[in-house]
Amino acid sequence: MEFSSKLLERAVNEMSQLPGIGKRTALRLVLHMLRQPKEQTLALSEALQTMRKEIKFCKSCHNISDVELCELCANPKRNTQIICVVEDIRDVMAIENTSSFKGLYHVLGGKISPMDGIGPHDLNIETLVNKVKEGEVTELILALSSTMEGDTTNFYIYKQIKDYNVTTSTIARGISVGDELEYADEITLGRSIVNRIPFESSIKL
Amino acid sequence: MEFSSKLLERAVNEMSQLPGIGKRTALRLVLHMLRQPKEQTLALSEALQTMRKEIKFCKSCHNISDVELCELCANPKRNTQIICVVEDIRDVMAIENTSSFKGLYHVLGGKISPMDGIGPHDLNIETLVNKVKEGEVTELILALSSTMEGDTTNFYIYKQIKDYNVTTSTIARGISVGDELEYADEITLGRSIVNRIPFESSIKL
Ligand SMILES: [Zn+2]
Ligand SMILES: [Zn+2]
Repeated sequence: MEFSSKLLERAVNEMSQLPGIGKRTALRLVLHMLRQPKEQTLALSEALQTMRKEIKFCKSCHNISDVELCELCANPKRNTQIICVVEDIRDVMAIENTSSFKGLYHVLGGKISPMDGIGPHDLNIETLVNKVKEGEVTELILALSSTMEGDTTNFYIYKQIKDYNVTTSTIARGISVGDELEYADEITLGRSIVNRIPFESSIKL
Repeated sequence: MEFSSKLLERAVNEMSQLPGIGKRTALRLVLHMLRQPKEQTLALSEALQTMRKEIKFCKSCHNISDVELCELCANPKRNTQIICVVEDIRDVMAIENTSSFKGLYHVLGGKISPMDGIGPHDLNIETLVNKVKEGEVTELILALSSTMEGDTTNFYIYKQIKDYNVTTSTIARGISVGDELEYADEITLGRSIVNRIPFESSIKL
Protein backbone atom coordinates (compact mmCIF):
# COMPACT_ATOMS: atom_id res chain seq x y z
CA MET A 1 0.00 0.00 0.00
CA GLU A 2 1.39 3.37 -1.10
CA PHE A 3 0.30 6.25 1.11
CA SER A 4 0.20 9.91 0.15
CA SER A 5 0.91 10.89 3.76
CA LYS A 6 3.32 9.60 6.40
CA LEU A 7 0.87 10.58 9.16
CA LEU A 8 -1.84 8.50 7.52
CA GLU A 9 0.53 5.60 6.92
CA ARG A 10 1.67 5.54 10.53
CA ALA A 11 -1.91 5.62 11.85
CA VAL A 12 -2.91 2.76 9.51
CA ASN A 13 0.17 0.72 10.47
CA GLU A 14 -0.49 1.12 14.18
CA MET A 15 -4.19 0.25 13.82
CA SER A 16 -3.35 -2.86 11.79
CA GLN A 17 -1.26 -4.21 14.71
CA LEU A 18 -4.57 -5.04 16.40
CA PRO A 19 -5.78 -8.64 16.00
CA GLY A 20 -8.26 -9.13 13.15
CA ILE A 21 -7.61 -5.64 11.71
CA GLY A 22 -5.87 -5.83 8.33
CA LYS A 23 -4.42 -2.88 6.43
CA ARG A 24 -7.64 -2.27 4.47
CA THR A 25 -9.84 -2.29 7.54
CA ALA A 26 -7.36 -0.02 9.32
CA LEU A 27 -7.46 2.43 6.41
CA ARG A 28 -11.27 2.36 6.39
CA LEU A 29 -11.35 3.10 10.14
CA VAL A 30 -8.76 5.87 9.91
CA LEU A 31 -10.55 7.56 6.98
CA HIS A 32 -13.75 7.39 9.02
CA MET A 33 -11.96 9.23 11.84
CA LEU A 34 -10.92 11.95 9.39
CA ARG A 35 -14.57 12.49 8.41
CA GLN A 36 -15.71 12.75 12.06
CA PRO A 37 -15.14 15.79 14.31
CA LYS A 38 -11.55 15.98 15.54
CA GLU A 39 -12.72 15.68 19.17
CA GLN A 40 -13.86 12.10 18.59
CA THR A 41 -10.41 10.84 17.61
CA LEU A 42 -8.78 12.82 20.40
CA ALA A 43 -11.19 11.26 22.92
CA LEU A 44 -10.43 7.75 21.62
CA SER A 45 -6.72 8.38 21.70
CA GLU A 46 -6.86 9.83 25.20
CA ALA A 47 -9.04 6.96 26.51
CA LEU A 48 -6.62 4.31 25.21
CA GLN A 49 -3.60 6.14 26.57
CA THR A 50 -5.06 6.72 30.03
CA MET A 51 -6.34 3.17 30.25
CA ARG A 52 -2.99 1.66 29.30
CA LYS A 53 -1.07 3.88 31.70
CA GLU A 54 -3.36 3.78 34.71
CA ILE A 55 -5.25 0.51 34.68
CA LYS A 56 -4.71 -1.71 37.71
CA PHE A 57 -5.30 -5.35 38.39
CA CYS A 58 -6.98 -6.38 41.65
CA LYS A 59 -4.24 -7.56 44.04
CA SER A 60 -6.41 -10.47 45.12
CA CYS A 61 -8.24 -11.81 42.05
CA HIS A 62 -6.29 -10.09 39.20
CA ASN A 63 -9.50 -8.72 37.70
CA ILE A 64 -9.11 -5.34 35.99
CA SER A 65 -9.89 -2.63 38.51
CA ASP A 66 -9.41 1.09 39.12
CA VAL A 67 -8.55 0.44 42.78
CA GLU A 68 -6.26 -1.99 44.63
CA LEU A 69 -9.04 -4.38 45.60
CA CYS A 70 -11.76 -4.79 42.95
CA GLU A 71 -15.46 -4.18 43.67
CA LEU A 72 -16.17 -7.90 43.76
CA CYS A 73 -13.39 -8.75 46.22
CA ALA A 74 -14.29 -5.71 48.34
CA ASN A 75 -17.99 -6.66 48.51
CA PRO A 76 -18.73 -8.13 51.99
CA LYS A 77 -21.80 -9.96 50.61
CA ARG A 78 -19.72 -12.25 48.38
CA ASN A 79 -18.89 -15.74 49.63
CA THR A 80 -15.11 -15.81 50.06
CA GLN A 81 -15.03 -19.61 50.43
CA ILE A 82 -15.88 -20.35 46.79
CA ILE A 83 -13.54 -19.23 44.02
CA CYS A 84 -14.38 -19.44 40.35
CA VAL A 85 -11.20 -19.71 38.26
CA VAL A 86 -11.46 -18.08 34.84
CA GLU A 87 -9.15 -17.28 31.97
CA ASP A 88 -10.00 -13.69 31.31
CA ILE A 89 -12.03 -10.77 32.64
CA ARG A 90 -14.55 -11.32 29.85
CA ASP A 91 -15.47 -14.55 31.61
CA VAL A 92 -15.99 -12.67 34.89
CA MET A 93 -18.33 -10.28 33.05
CA ALA A 94 -20.19 -13.16 31.38
CA ILE A 95 -20.69 -15.11 34.66
CA GLU A 96 -21.63 -11.98 36.64
CA ASN A 97 -24.26 -11.32 34.00
CA THR A 98 -26.00 -14.64 34.83
CA SER A 99 -26.36 -13.67 38.54
CA SER A 100 -25.84 -17.38 39.34
CA PHE A 101 -22.63 -17.06 41.33
CA LYS A 102 -22.03 -15.25 44.59
CA GLY A 103 -18.45 -16.30 45.35
CA LEU A 104 -15.21 -14.67 44.25
CA TYR A 105 -13.16 -15.02 41.07
CA HIS A 106 -9.56 -15.68 40.22
CA VAL A 107 -8.44 -14.46 36.81
CA LEU A 108 -5.57 -16.55 35.42
CA GLY A 109 -4.84 -14.20 32.52
CA GLY A 110 -4.75 -17.00 29.95
CA LYS A 111 -4.37 -20.77 29.61
CA ILE A 112 -1.25 -22.93 29.58
CA SER A 113 -0.29 -23.20 25.92
CA PRO A 114 3.18 -24.53 25.08
CA MET A 115 2.50 -23.75 21.39
CA ASP A 116 2.20 -20.04 22.23
CA GLY A 117 5.04 -20.16 24.76
CA ILE A 118 2.65 -19.69 27.71
CA GLY A 119 3.69 -21.73 30.74
CA PRO A 120 2.18 -21.94 34.26
CA HIS A 121 4.51 -19.18 35.47
CA ASP A 122 3.10 -16.72 32.94
CA LEU A 123 -0.31 -17.08 34.57
CA ASN A 124 -1.71 -16.09 37.98
CA ILE A 125 -1.56 -19.66 39.33
CA GLU A 126 0.78 -19.22 42.28
CA THR A 127 -1.47 -16.67 43.99
CA LEU A 128 -4.40 -19.07 43.52
CA VAL A 129 -2.51 -21.97 45.11
CA ASN A 130 -1.52 -19.68 48.00
CA LYS A 131 -5.17 -18.79 48.61
CA VAL A 132 -5.99 -22.50 48.84
CA LYS A 133 -3.04 -23.14 51.17
CA GLU A 134 -4.25 -20.39 53.53
CA GLY A 135 -7.25 -22.65 54.20
CA GLU A 136 -10.29 -20.36 53.95
CA VAL A 137 -11.32 -21.57 50.49
CA THR A 138 -13.58 -24.64 50.48
CA GLU A 139 -14.32 -24.92 46.77
CA LEU A 140 -12.63 -24.08 43.48
CA ILE A 141 -14.80 -23.96 40.36
CA LEU A 142 -12.59 -24.43 37.31
CA ALA A 143 -14.44 -22.48 34.62
CA LEU A 144 -11.96 -22.55 31.73
CA SER A 145 -13.15 -23.33 28.23
CA SER A 146 -12.97 -27.04 27.45
CA THR A 147 -10.19 -26.88 24.90
CA MET A 148 -6.93 -28.81 25.14
CA GLU A 149 -5.27 -25.76 26.74
CA GLY A 150 -8.15 -25.38 29.18
CA ASP A 151 -7.93 -29.05 30.16
CA THR A 152 -4.15 -28.81 30.60
CA THR A 153 -4.52 -25.74 32.80
CA ASN A 154 -7.31 -27.33 34.88
CA PHE A 155 -5.19 -30.41 35.43
CA TYR A 156 -2.09 -28.41 36.34
CA ILE A 157 -4.05 -26.46 38.97
CA TYR A 158 -5.71 -29.63 40.24
CA LYS A 159 -2.34 -31.28 40.85
CA GLN A 160 -1.16 -28.28 42.87
CA ILE A 161 -4.13 -28.18 45.23
CA LYS A 162 -5.48 -31.75 45.44
CA ASP A 163 -3.72 -32.47 48.76
CA TYR A 164 -5.43 -29.52 50.45
CA ASN A 165 -8.89 -29.63 51.92
CA VAL A 166 -10.75 -28.09 48.97
CA THR A 167 -13.47 -29.37 46.67
CA THR A 168 -12.69 -28.91 42.96
CA SER A 169 -15.47 -28.70 40.43
CA THR A 170 -15.81 -27.80 36.78
CA ILE A 171 -18.81 -26.07 35.27
CA ALA A 172 -21.41 -28.37 33.69
CA ARG A 173 -21.01 -28.57 29.96
CA GLY A 174 -24.35 -27.58 28.63
CA ILE A 175 -22.36 -25.50 26.18
CA SER A 176 -20.61 -27.22 23.29
CA VAL A 177 -17.08 -28.51 23.71
CA GLY A 178 -14.60 -25.99 22.34
CA ASP A 179 -16.92 -22.98 22.66
CA GLU A 180 -15.71 -19.88 24.43
CA LEU A 181 -17.62 -19.06 27.64
CA GLU A 182 -18.27 -15.49 26.74
CA TYR A 183 -20.32 -16.43 23.68
CA ALA A 184 -22.64 -18.79 25.57
CA ASP A 185 -26.17 -17.58 26.22
CA GLU A 186 -26.93 -16.48 29.78
CA ILE A 187 -29.28 -19.34 30.70
CA THR A 188 -26.92 -22.08 29.56
CA LEU A 189 -23.98 -20.44 31.27
CA GLY A 190 -26.00 -19.84 34.45
CA ARG A 191 -27.11 -23.49 34.57
CA SER A 192 -23.61 -24.76 33.98
CA ILE A 193 -22.51 -22.89 37.11
CA VAL A 194 -25.39 -24.21 39.22
CA ASN A 195 -24.92 -27.81 37.99
CA ARG A 196 -21.16 -27.85 38.37
CA ILE A 197 -19.60 -31.29 38.86
CA PRO A 198 -16.59 -32.46 40.90
CA PHE A 199 -13.45 -32.06 38.81
CA GLU A 200 -12.44 -35.69 39.55
CA SER A 201 -15.53 -37.01 37.76
CA SER A 202 -14.83 -34.89 34.69
CA ILE A 203 -11.44 -36.49 33.97
CA LYS A 204 -10.15 -40.03 33.79
CA LEU A 205 -7.59 -39.98 36.62
CA MET B 1 -22.10 -4.74 29.68
CA GLU B 2 -20.97 -4.18 33.29
CA PHE B 3 -17.34 -3.14 33.60
CA SER B 4 -15.10 -3.53 36.64
CA SER B 5 -13.17 -0.41 35.67
CA LYS B 6 -14.22 3.01 34.40
CA LEU B 7 -10.95 3.33 32.45
CA LEU B 8 -11.69 0.06 30.66
CA GLU B 9 -15.30 1.04 30.04
CA ARG B 10 -14.32 4.37 28.52
CA ALA B 11 -11.73 2.78 26.22
CA VAL B 12 -14.27 0.17 25.06
CA ASN B 13 -16.96 2.81 24.50
CA GLU B 14 -14.64 4.98 22.43
CA MET B 15 -13.40 2.03 20.34
CA SER B 16 -16.97 0.91 19.66
CA GLN B 17 -17.74 4.29 18.04
CA LEU B 18 -15.78 3.06 15.02
CA PRO B 19 -17.85 1.58 12.17
CA GLY B 20 -18.14 -2.21 12.29
CA ILE B 21 -16.66 -2.42 15.81
CA GLY B 22 -19.26 -3.57 18.33
CA LYS B 23 -18.82 -3.59 22.11
CA ARG B 24 -17.54 -7.19 22.17
CA THR B 25 -14.97 -6.60 19.46
CA ALA B 26 -13.90 -3.38 21.20
CA LEU B 27 -13.44 -5.26 24.47
CA ARG B 28 -11.40 -7.96 22.73
CA LEU B 29 -9.15 -5.33 21.12
CA VAL B 30 -8.71 -3.39 24.35
CA LEU B 31 -7.85 -6.54 26.34
CA HIS B 32 -5.32 -7.41 23.66
CA MET B 33 -3.71 -3.99 24.20
CA LEU B 34 -3.46 -4.70 27.93
CA ARG B 35 -1.54 -7.90 27.21
CA GLN B 36 0.92 -6.14 24.87
CA PRO B 37 3.76 -3.86 26.02
CA LYS B 38 2.51 -0.45 27.10
CA GLU B 39 4.57 1.23 24.35
CA GLN B 40 2.40 -0.32 21.64
CA THR B 41 -0.82 1.32 22.85
CA LEU B 42 0.95 4.62 23.43
CA ALA B 43 2.30 4.51 19.86
CA LEU B 44 -1.19 3.81 18.47
CA SER B 45 -2.74 6.54 20.55
CA GLU B 46 -0.04 9.03 19.55
CA ALA B 47 -0.30 8.13 15.84
CA LEU B 48 -4.07 8.68 15.79
CA GLN B 49 -3.82 11.95 17.68
CA THR B 50 -1.04 13.38 15.52
CA MET B 51 -2.75 12.30 12.33
CA ARG B 52 -6.08 13.85 13.32
CA LYS B 53 -4.45 17.10 14.42
CA GLU B 54 -1.90 17.58 11.65
CA ILE B 55 -3.20 15.93 8.52
CA LYS B 56 -3.67 18.21 5.55
CA PHE B 57 -5.59 17.93 2.34
CA CYS B 58 -3.91 18.92 -0.94
CA LYS B 59 -5.12 22.41 -1.85
CA SER B 60 -5.50 21.36 -5.47
CA CYS B 61 -6.89 17.78 -5.54
CA HIS B 62 -8.02 17.35 -1.88
CA ASN B 63 -6.01 14.14 -1.54
CA ILE B 64 -4.63 13.54 1.96
CA SER B 65 -1.14 15.01 2.12
CA ASP B 66 1.50 16.13 4.61
CA VAL B 67 2.26 19.21 2.53
CA GLU B 68 0.16 21.92 0.82
CA LEU B 69 0.42 20.39 -2.63
CA CYS B 70 0.39 16.57 -2.70
CA GLU B 71 3.15 14.49 -4.34
CA LEU B 72 0.94 13.72 -7.33
CA CYS B 73 -0.02 17.33 -8.02
CA ALA B 74 3.59 18.45 -7.47
CA ASN B 75 5.00 15.85 -9.89
CA PRO B 76 5.93 17.61 -13.18
CA LYS B 77 5.67 14.30 -15.09
CA ARG B 78 1.91 14.02 -14.53
CA ASN B 79 -0.44 15.17 -17.29
CA THR B 80 -2.32 18.17 -15.87
CA GLN B 81 -4.88 18.12 -18.69
CA ILE B 82 -6.63 14.92 -17.58
CA ILE B 83 -8.35 14.76 -14.24
CA CYS B 84 -9.72 11.58 -12.74
CA VAL B 85 -12.59 12.35 -10.34
CA VAL B 86 -12.86 9.92 -7.42
CA GLU B 87 -14.85 9.62 -4.24
CA ASP B 88 -12.16 8.85 -1.74
CA ILE B 89 -8.40 8.61 -1.34
CA ARG B 90 -8.69 4.81 -1.33
CA ASP B 91 -9.69 5.11 -4.99
CA VAL B 92 -6.58 7.20 -5.71
CA MET B 93 -4.48 4.48 -4.09
CA ALA B 94 -6.27 1.73 -6.04
CA ILE B 95 -5.87 3.48 -9.43
CA GLU B 96 -2.24 4.48 -8.75
CA ASN B 97 -1.58 0.83 -8.04
CA THR B 98 -2.60 -0.11 -11.60
CA SER B 99 -0.03 2.32 -13.15
CA SER B 100 -2.57 2.90 -15.94
CA PHE B 101 -3.17 6.59 -15.34
CA LYS B 102 -0.71 9.49 -15.60
CA GLY B 103 -3.03 12.46 -15.14
CA LEU B 104 -4.12 14.11 -11.90
CA TYR B 105 -6.93 13.32 -9.48
CA HIS B 106 -9.73 15.23 -7.86
CA VAL B 107 -11.03 13.75 -4.60
CA LEU B 108 -14.69 14.64 -4.00
CA GLY B 109 -14.76 13.36 -0.43
CA GLY B 110 -17.97 11.38 -0.94
CA LYS B 111 -21.00 11.08 -3.21
CA ILE B 112 -24.21 13.08 -3.31
CA SER B 113 -26.60 11.20 -1.06
CA PRO B 114 -29.80 12.96 0.05
CA MET B 115 -30.56 9.97 2.31
CA ASP B 116 -27.41 10.68 4.33
CA GLY B 117 -27.86 14.43 4.09
CA ILE B 118 -24.89 14.86 1.74
CA GLY B 119 -25.50 17.52 -0.89
CA PRO B 120 -23.22 18.90 -3.65
CA HIS B 121 -21.96 21.63 -1.32
CA ASP B 122 -20.62 19.07 1.17
CA LEU B 123 -18.30 17.75 -1.54
CA ASN B 124 -15.27 19.23 -3.36
CA ILE B 125 -17.26 19.96 -6.53
CA GLU B 126 -16.87 23.73 -6.79
CA THR B 127 -13.06 23.55 -6.96
CA LEU B 128 -13.39 20.93 -9.72
CA VAL B 129 -15.73 23.11 -11.77
CA ASN B 130 -13.33 26.04 -11.30
CA LYS B 131 -10.44 23.95 -12.68
CA VAL B 132 -12.52 23.21 -15.77
CA LYS B 133 -13.50 26.87 -16.16
CA GLU B 134 -9.83 27.89 -16.08
CA GLY B 135 -9.52 26.01 -19.39
CA GLU B 136 -6.36 23.91 -19.01
CA VAL B 137 -8.25 20.64 -18.43
CA THR B 138 -9.21 18.75 -21.60
CA GLU B 139 -10.70 15.62 -20.09
CA LEU B 140 -12.52 14.60 -16.92
CA ILE B 141 -12.70 10.89 -16.11
CA LEU B 142 -15.62 10.29 -13.75
CA ALA B 143 -14.48 7.25 -11.74
CA LEU B 144 -17.18 7.00 -9.09
CA SER B 145 -18.70 3.65 -8.23
CA SER B 146 -21.79 2.91 -10.31
CA THR B 147 -24.34 3.13 -7.54
CA MET B 148 -27.35 5.44 -7.56
CA GLU B 149 -25.34 8.00 -5.55
CA GLY B 150 -22.41 7.69 -7.94
CA ASP B 151 -24.68 8.21 -10.97
CA THR B 152 -26.35 11.22 -9.32
CA THR B 153 -22.96 12.78 -8.55
CA ASN B 154 -21.65 12.10 -12.08
CA PHE B 155 -24.69 13.72 -13.56
CA TYR B 156 -24.53 16.74 -11.25
CA ILE B 157 -20.89 17.35 -12.22
CA TYR B 158 -21.67 16.78 -15.90
CA LYS B 159 -24.38 19.45 -15.86
CA GLN B 160 -21.95 21.97 -14.33
CA ILE B 161 -19.20 21.51 -16.92
CA LYS B 162 -20.92 20.39 -20.13
CA ASP B 163 -20.84 23.90 -21.66
CA TYR B 164 -17.07 24.12 -21.34
CA ASN B 165 -14.58 22.67 -23.78
CA VAL B 166 -13.86 19.44 -21.92
CA THR B 167 -14.35 15.75 -22.76
CA THR B 168 -16.14 13.79 -20.05
CA SER B 169 -15.66 10.04 -19.78
CA THR B 170 -16.52 7.33 -17.29
CA ILE B 171 -14.36 4.31 -16.61
CA ALA B 172 -15.30 1.17 -18.56
CA ARG B 173 -17.38 -1.18 -16.48
CA GLY B 174 -15.51 -4.41 -16.58
CA ILE B 175 -16.24 -4.53 -12.88
CA SER B 176 -19.73 -5.44 -11.71
CA VAL B 177 -22.32 -2.73 -11.24
CA GLY B 178 -22.50 -1.70 -7.60
CA ASP B 179 -18.98 -2.91 -6.71
CA GLU B 180 -16.62 -0.56 -4.93
CA LEU B 181 -13.54 0.40 -7.01
CA GLU B 182 -11.06 -0.39 -4.29
CA TYR B 183 -12.02 -4.08 -4.24
CA ALA B 184 -11.60 -4.58 -8.00
CA ASP B 185 -8.53 -6.52 -9.11
CA GLU B 186 -5.71 -4.47 -10.64
CA ILE B 187 -6.07 -5.73 -14.21
CA THR B 188 -9.81 -5.09 -14.43
CA LEU B 189 -9.44 -1.67 -12.88
CA GLY B 190 -6.48 -0.81 -15.13
CA ARG B 191 -8.43 -1.83 -18.25
CA SER B 192 -11.47 0.12 -17.22
CA ILE B 193 -9.30 3.24 -17.09
CA VAL B 194 -7.72 2.57 -20.50
CA ASN B 195 -11.08 1.72 -22.13
CA ARG B 196 -12.96 4.65 -20.67
CA ILE B 197 -16.01 5.80 -22.61
CA PRO B 198 -17.52 9.26 -23.20
CA PHE B 199 -19.89 10.07 -20.35
CA GLU B 200 -22.66 10.98 -22.80
CA SER B 201 -22.76 7.43 -24.16
CA SER B 202 -23.03 5.97 -20.65
CA ILE B 203 -26.31 7.73 -19.86
CA LYS B 204 -29.61 8.25 -21.58
CA LEU B 205 -29.61 12.01 -21.89
ZN1 LIG C 1 -10.64 -8.72 42.95
ZN1 LIG D 1 -2.99 17.02 -4.98
